[in-house]
Amino acid sequence: MKQKPYSFPLSEYITQEKFNTIKKMASSKKTPFLVIDLDIIKRNFMELKGHLPFAKIHYAVKANPHDNVLKLLYSLGSNFDVASVYELDQLLRLGITPDRMLYGNTIKKKENIQYFYEKGVRLFATDCETDLNNIATFAPGSRVFFRLLTDGSGADWPLSRKFGTHPDIVFDLIKQAKKLDVIPYGLSFHVGSQQRDIGQWDNAISQCYYLFESAKDIGVELGMINLGGGFPAHYNEPTAETNIYAQEIERFLREDFGENMPEIILEPGRSLTGDAGVIVAEVIMTEKKAKHNPYKWMYLDIGMFGGMIETINESIKYPIYIEKEGLESEYIIAGPTCDSMDILYEDYKYPFPSTTTGGDKVYIFTTGAYTQSYSSVYFNGFPPLEAYTIGG
Amino acid sequence: MKQKPYSFPLSEYITQEKFNTIKKMASSKKTPFLVIDLDIIKRNFMELKGHLPFAKIHYAVKANPHDNVLKLLYSLGSNFDVASVYELDQLLRLGITPDRMLYGNTIKKKENIQYFYEKGVRLFATDCETDLNNIATFAPGSRVFFRLLTDGSGADWPLSRKFGTHPDIVFDLIKQAKKLDVIPYGLSFHVGSQQRDIGQWDNAISQCYYLFESAKDIGVELGMINLGGGFPAHYNEPTAETNIYAQEIERFLREDFGENMPEIILEPGRSLTGDAGVIVAEVIMTEKKAKHNPYKWMYLDIGMFGGMIETINESIKYPIYIEKEGLESEYIIAGPTCDSMDILYEDYKYPFPSTTTGGDKVYIFTTGAYTQSYSSVYFNGFPPLEAYTIGG
Repeated sequence: MKQKPYSFPLSEYITQEKFNTIKKMASSKKTPFLVIDLDIIKRNFMELKGHLPFAKIHYAVKANPHDNVLKLLYSLGSNFDVASVYELDQLLRLGITPDRMLYGNTIKKKENIQYFYEKGVRLFATDCETDLNNIATFAPGSRVFFRLLTDGSGADWPLSRKFGTHPDIVFDLIKQAKKLDVIPYGLSFHVGSQQRDIGQWDNAISQCYYLFESAKDIGVELGMINLGGGFPAHYNEPTAETNIYAQEIERFLREDFGENMPEIILEPGRSLTGDAGVIVAEVIMTEKKAKHNPYKWMYLDIGMFGGMIETINESIKYPIYIEKEGLESEYIIAGPTCDSMDILYEDYKYPFPSTTTGGDKVYIFTTGAYTQSYSSVYFNGFPPLEAYTIGG
Repeated sequence: MKQKPYSFPLSEYITQEKFNTIKKMASSKKTPFLVIDLDIIKRNFMELKGHLPFAKIHYAVKANPHDNVLKLLYSLGSNFDVASVYELDQLLRLGITPDRMLYGNTIKKKENIQYFYEKGVRLFATDCETDLNNIATFAPGSRVFFRLLTDGSGADWPLSRKFGTHPDIVFDLIKQAKKLDVIPYGLSFHVGSQQRDIGQWDNAISQCYYLFESAKDIGVELGMINLGGGFPAHYNEPTAETNIYAQEIERFLREDFGENMPEIILEPGRSLTGDAGVIVAEVIMTEKKAKHNPYKWMYLDIGMFGGMIETINESIKYPIYIEKEGLESEYIIAGPTCDSMDILYEDYKYPFPSTTTGGDKVYIFTTGAYTQSYSSVYFNGFPPLEAYTIGG
């Protein structure tokens, strides 16, 4: 597949003024590094809030756990979807209160549940009986929501069978919850990250409606649907805008629930922070592997293990910009480690100026989510990606 | 594919006494963590040295860069294959002298070459003209070896086209080197990590012989072949033992070079340290996703982003042991993060006791290479894998 010529600036996201700031940083700081523009996160948050005013937003901390990102979102009124005791500790350290949190990971140890409970968290995801019993024992009186298994079709980063369970088991869990010291509160699902097929929400919402009705038959009134994440950031592949997602999702909800809309929770991560990131890297060198090969190789000082793990199987296609004239040469792009898996794009060819050479700065856009925190701690000796924030 | 029932102890590697030590650590330390048995690294090093006494061993630091591993190998007389300026700094900090090192990464910035040169390193890998020119400019008078492209067939962790170049380009580079202030010293290749087809070395050695002869025609006497790594560690899939590899490789060399054997360099990483590692982890919980599904899920507190990245595509199949009776249930094994890619084995089923439950300790063998240094810095908040050494 061939990339469309990249047109700069992406004026909707990083402004020319901000890009000038980033270029100034590029000339003084050691590459690679990530710049996070807090103004874009603010804009994305307010936009989502504006389109779905009835929804409660729990930001998925794992997408970008930078302190300044979390502080900004807290100040804007966001709540948080927390994946581990380590994230919980970080939020508490920043002064974020437990009433703003839910423990969204269905995979948890007893002592993790107990720790969240002791710190004041009272809302838990679950998808199996063992976990439900543990919540009742170690977080008594808490509200729980049950995660439905979805198939993730249409998502660039699909969510497999690892999370959630079948509707018949969810129904059993609701029955079980009645007997325990927990409040069966709602349902959740996740259609897959960077989900470009809006219809996926329709299917899942219909399943929720069906389970809400079945629960009533056994005397349980569920009151909440957690729609998860899945709203896209702006990579190379086209996606609909947030307002379209919001309109459609509201329509699906109204179709099933009419005037009796449950409480709605959203867990956006990528869609809030993805657009806000620019990785500044450098070309190490370019090379031709054989005399008559039409493609050149371009090695960057960032790779799959330095924060770009979502390029695995070329899943996420980041917009990449080099500030030189021309887009006439196609390159295979690889990272700096001695690991042969550390190739970012080989099938999907990026056009760049044929004059690209070692030392050229490379700007990788839409890298604000699922990058820095994924960096390896010391693979091939390389340190984790540095991150800086601007704006806000 | 079904795993053969796992028979413990792996008496050749971790002794019962050492395993008792590890179990004691398991009862007092927070999981997950990696234990590295230095005695096994010593044994593997001495064995390889014994089988190929004429070869100079350059340990591939990236496989396991723990300080104690590097100090041990230095004391045993090992040399080092260095991938980055960060690894170089670490080795120097440990008092390892630059005459023991080669800069084995073909992907390097000018300033990296200069830094290695300033610190005293005089042996460099290369595979393209730009890099060769940079070495001549920034590391004048150094010896260089040219890396040949191999196809990596038969390797569990193949090395693709990222490294090395075609023989005709290698020949051009040798010609070019004659005109520059560098010494064209030898050739290198890498058959792929965990290479189970010994015949791959034969093909590559024959190519080297052909290039040695061609180089003579233009007045260049090459004197060294770097056979790279590729010797296996002991995972679930069977492999030949080191002595078989050594015998065969020596035979291939004699067939081509007879009495005029060049200097031989080896760059083992995985085969020295892989067997020496045991990851101690814990079962978070087990779960059935649907009423009539024959497989259960087992969630561990270590996963793909906590140091087990080589389970990607189920490439490396680690022996896994739970100290309970029975192997009657097959499990899908997944990690603790909210990332659905964080599944270790789904196609390849591991049998475990059906009584396996949250809190059970899990011992993952042959995890001494390409684990800890790959851990993500903070994904889902989880800290990098801790590592401890015993023995030595």
